[in-house]
Amino acid sequence: MKFAMARGELALDEFGRIARYFAPLAVGEPGALGLLDDAAVLSVGEGERLVVTMDALISSIHFLPSDSPKDIARKALRVNLSDLASMGAVCRYYTLALAIPKSWNAEAVEAWLAEFTAGLAADQAQFKISLVGGDSVATDGPLSISITAMGTVNGDAYLPRGGASVGDDIWVSGTIGDAALGLVALSEQWPGLDAAAREALITRYRIPEPRLSLGAGLIGHASAAMDVSDGLMQDLGHVARASGLGAQVEFDRVPLSVAGRAVVTLVGEEDARQHVLGGGDDYELLFTAPVTEREAIARIAAVQDVPVCRIGCMIDGQDVIALDHDGEPIALRRTGYAHA
Amino acid sequence: MKFAMARGELALDEFGRIARYFAPLAVGEPGALGLLDDAAVLSVGEGERLVVTMDALISSIHFLPSDSPKDIARKALRVNLSDLASMGAVCRYYTLALAIPKSWNAEAVEAWLAEFTAGLAADQAQFKISLVGGDSVATDGPLSISITAMGTVNGDAYLPRGGASVGDDIWVSGTIGDAALGLVALSEQWPGLDAAAREALITRYRIPEPRLSLGAGLIGHASAAMDVSDGLMQDLGHVARASGLGAQVEFDRVPLSVAGRAVVTLVGEEDARQHVLGGGDDYELLFTAPVTEREAIARIAAVQDVPVCRIGCMIDGQDVIALDHDGEPIALRRTGYAHA
Repeated sequence: MKFAMARGELALDEFGRIARYFAPLAVGEPGALGLLDDAAVLSVGEGERLVVTMDALISSIHFLPSDSPKDIARKALRVNLSDLASMGAVCRYYTLALAIPKSWNAEAVEAWLAEFTAGLAADQAQFKISLVGGDSVATDGPLSISITAMGTVNGDAYLPRGGASVGDDIWVSGTIGDAALGLVALSEQWPGLDAAAREALITRYRIPEPRLSLGAGLIGHASAAMDVSDGLMQDLGHVARASGLGAQVEFDRVPLSVAGRAVVTLVGEEDARQHVLGGGDDYELLFTAPVTEREAIARIAAVQDVPVCRIGCMIDGQDVIALDHDGEPIALRRTGYAHA
Repeated sequence: MKFAMARGELALDEFGRIARYFAPLAVGEPGALGLLDDAAVLSVGEGERLVVTMDALISSIHFLPSDSPKDIARKALRVNLSDLASMGAVCRYYTLALAIPKSWNAEAVEAWLAEFTAGLAADQAQFKISLVGGDSVATDGPLSISITAMGTVNGDAYLPRGGASVGDDIWVSGTIGDAALGLVALSEQWPGLDAAAREALITRYRIPEPRLSLGAGLIGHASAAMDVSDGLMQDLGHVARASGLGAQVEFDRVPLSVAGRAVVTLVGEEDARQHVLGGGDDYELLFTAPVTEREAIARIAAVQDVPVCRIGCMIDGQDVIALDHDGEPIALRRTGYAHA
């Protein structure tokens, strides 16, 4: 564990920084060894498998420099937890690498770390996960955060991306499009959108809600799953491709929030559709399941108090399409983040 | 697994890049799921514990922009493997996050990735480890690499940093100071140092040799261990502090390479001592063991063909000192990287 700025200049030394900011995040996990050894030594129970994911976030790309350190911390951790949720895993441990701009003075670094680690601490308590190691370095570039999150599943009981069959229902949790609309709302003042709706959308962009309990509950019921990070249709394309199938969604079935519906009214359905079908960052679960599982899934969702909606079905072929209320395919101007 | 540049512009799309460069690095590990799912699902055998470490490297700080992508890959992976070695772990899996400068054009990115992944592939074969996931993003800053490496140990059988007792011998593997001298040799032309010696030192800086088999072999024999990354005396200070002890080293016992000795002759012993005792990046094992283990350790080292030397002993108190051949403490102008 090396939470110091290599060859940088800071008020606290390596041990001071670990003791103040990071060791408290690892105090509940004996295998973290107080963050003072070269690595963590973690128990993985008999019969369990380790589930590992890693996401990197760069300032101005994945979050805004003006976002609060607490929100940045929560987003960085939660996008990883969302990946664990989409595997049906129980989250356990994470490691964290920070690259902090050299241009920040010592006071700025300490103030930022204090808030950032407070955000991590809040999420650790909520999601029952512990920091177990990491690294911190100085950079000439923007603030960068890498997190590796680890969870467990029992044996082969996980939710694959490519397990869907023809005729399977396509489901999503929560509401779709809010995060993409929230990102637009940060720079665009939609006249007529009330402050509460605007704030709700922006919060959805800033602080994702990883669907861990739903993901774990879907094991044995869902045939495939992933999280909606790049955009609904693009991510559905990933599931379809991995399953060797096509997919068809009815736009009118895609669940929108109250704030999302307010934007539809303001900007018109055509524009809103693009954000809902193509926008990323929702971090809701997108999953497929046989029609025989409808009741079981409704029950699981009710127990966990997470709304779920059926939005379409898996089809033969390679087409991944969304239909409007006349049954016509909706042309997408963009399909999520420009991953190409 | 997301090996694409979020919102960037590149010749290959996400799946194209994964298929060409990264999937071949995961082909031997079924739990990597072809790098196509949200996370890897890895088996950890019964009775085994997971050992996890994470290191971040930034261009111009941890490696030079002029270093070959192959060497950068090997250094990035090996500094992590060295942490696993210092725990006595068997290395198994790693995840990789890359932040690639936006200023690179598509051809430059592809060329760099081709060489970088070739370097990883070579080391994967050598060390029996597999890529199992990661992320790739675009940055306005310098090239940055984060690796999380995972290994296993049997139950509680690992090498702690804080397990030394008074009277324990202090040992190091290989030779010390070469990497620090290699870094200096990159910018300074020592007249009189022959080309082969210069190259040997620079290679030691660029490509560390993680002592995995030695580390695993020392379980049950060494009382404490870490790797020499920040500088011999600073890292010995970490072991001493974690063990609640002091430490005393005889400089004349610290093993130097032939090239290292050549530099001593050139620059004088006083200057050379500073590099040897204070310079980082050697990634040799620094470990302690009861005097009763001397024969066993010599045998283990011989079997694995890794030279080891006793350089001092653990003492009461808090002082961590190096003595010259008159038994006088050597004053250090710097103690490794400025971790403060």
